[in-house]
Amino acid sequence: MEKIVEQGLLYDFYGELLTEHQKSIYEAAVYEDMSLTEIADEHGISKQGVHDLIKRCTKTLQSYEDKLHMIRRFEAIKFSAEELLKVSNSADMSGDELRKITGEISSRIIEELT
Amino acid sequence: MEKIVEQGLLYDFYGELLTEHQKSIYEAAVYEDMSLTEIADEHGISKQGVHDLIKRCTKTLQSYEDKLHMIRRFEAIKFSAEELLKVSNSADMSGDELRKITGEISSRIIEELT
Repeated sequence: MEKIVEQGLLYDFYGELLTEHQKSIYEAAVYEDMSLTEIADEHGISKQGVHDLIKRCTKTLQSYEDKLHMIRRFEAIKFSAEELLKVSNSADMSGDELRKITGEISSRIIEELT
Repeated sequence: MEKIVEQGLLYDFYGELLTEHQKSIYEAAVYEDMSLTEIADEHGISKQGVHDLIKRCTKTLQSYEDKLHMIRRFEAIKFSAEELLKVSNSADMSGDELRKITGEISSRIIEELT
């Protein structure tokens, strides 16, 4: 299950760099949860061919992440933004404290973006 | 000048997808501000060759942005984070107002990340 999520995340970020053919097979496997046999039948290729293509695409998508680190960077920013949202919802914090923490976290987000 | 900034930004985001050869020439032109003649001499290729390589690389980098939109997404998040930083520095805002705006902007950032 975790592997599927990971593949979905890789595809969300870098899927546009695959060919149309790769995309349609990868989507069928990862998003539509079709079996290898179903995909093979639909695309007129062997089950082994589908398996190899998905494996190769995951490797390609992972290599983009290894070079560009966009998922890692987005996750760091998301962590900070969620912290900020939590802080803004905590009623037992003074305006001055909130001001200080908001300043710190927004500065950190800006840093993470550069 | 604006074109140089743009090339630098493209390179910051997607430069790792170029080959080592492309990277060294692109960096010399965009970051070290070397002339085409200097780069040509250093790499033992023609001035026209350097010119063409830089043009081709910019096109390649731009095509990554056209597909992935990472620069556009990062800039939207940066805009929100800077807004938040400004808000946290404005002394004439009540704790409740700050809480509300912080909640809104951090939610927007989380949305921009997904």
